[in-house]
Amino acid sequence: MADNITWHHGKVTREDRVKLFGKKNKVFWFTGLSGSGKSTIAVEFEKRLHEQGHPTFILDGDNVRHGLNKNLGFSPEDREENIRRVAEVVKLFYDAGVTVLVCFISPYRNDREYARSLIGDDFVEVYVKCSLETCEERDPKGLYKKVRKGEIRGFTGVDAPYEEPTCPEVTIVSDIVGVDESVSACMDLL
Amino acid sequence: MADNITWHHGKVTREDRVKLFGKKNKVFWFTGLSGSGKSTIAVEFEKRLHEQGHPTFILDGDNVRHGLNKNLGFSPEDREENIRRVAEVVKLFYDAGVTVLVCFISPYRNDREYARSLIGDDFVEVYVKCSLETCEERDPKGLYKKVRKGEIRGFTGVDAPYEEPTCPEVTIVSDIVGVDESVSACMDLL
Repeated sequence: MADNITWHHGKVTREDRVKLFGKKNKVFWFTGLSGSGKSTIAVEFEKRLHEQGHPTFILDGDNVRHGLNKNLGFSPEDREENIRRVAEVVKLFYDAGVTVLVCFISPYRNDREYARSLIGDDFVEVYVKCSLETCEERDPKGLYKKVRKGEIRGFTGVDAPYEEPTCPEVTIVSDIVGVDESVSACMDLL
Repeated sequence: MADNITWHHGKVTREDRVKLFGKKNKVFWFTGLSGSGKSTIAVEFEKRLHEQGHPTFILDGDNVRHGLNKNLGFSPEDREENIRRVAEVVKLFYDAGVTVLVCFISPYRNDREYARSLIGDDFVEVYVKCSLETCEERDPKGLYKKVRKGEIRGFTGVDAPYEEPTCPEVTIVSDIVGVDESVSACMDLL
């Protein structure tokens, strides 16, 4: 389908933008079970980055499913397309010089590796590791309750797989580690 | 499909980002035939914006079809989905405080209006108006030649419709008006 399509080069590069902002930018990809604390950590991390003058943006799984990916469900194929689109958008934001925080369960290793392949060395995989028991206890959106009642199927960690990162840049064990300390661990990787 | 999805609010708003950058941001949506000069104008416009310290990004039809929309073709349905996804991404960039220049033929009025509805008052529709004859004479990508040989079908302006904007914020008649003057016309709308 990419026949008859040429690539248009702009005159402003990522490097130009980084220079304008005065801050190097990276991509922080938060992965982990529903309820593990991805968004909670990312929101506080963004706040701290912003206070220090970094251009930032959060791409959150739930929010993106209200917009760009509202025509996708939760089948394995749709999950793959969900992450593929997000990875492409992340690449655009990265090229725009913005530090992007990505909060997606993103259960499949291959999909996360695809995102990494688009970004390269500035890709930081943050594994927010949390026991299913703790996630279920927190249940911030009441989803685990629905799962246990049989109202939701194919739920990551319960009856759909979560493939743990093999070599994440940082692992945050959110059963134990608090939000402030988690944010500091991310800041160290800037 | 949006069941069981909640909206996560960040602690950094668009207004916070605009304040950090010190520049109000807008969306400039360039529409017009292939070869009308959308990308040429946008590239120079971005250069000028960047020189003045604006955070900027160009979303170009051809480039996006290499990435986010590489699984879409040129049927009416795919064109609609093409623009829908782009409009959603534009909204994200807008929320990130970036001034976005969008270069898409975007032949359907409804699709452009959808994009406008996501952005509101900061949406600037730039109609790059150019006669088919001039576009065909320029033929920067050799596409019109292929169309005339019958190698491409459903080409906007030839055998697929282009719906002119009814009320664009600015019309640039690129048969006549040069690039510098076109850029100035856009700058006036900042």
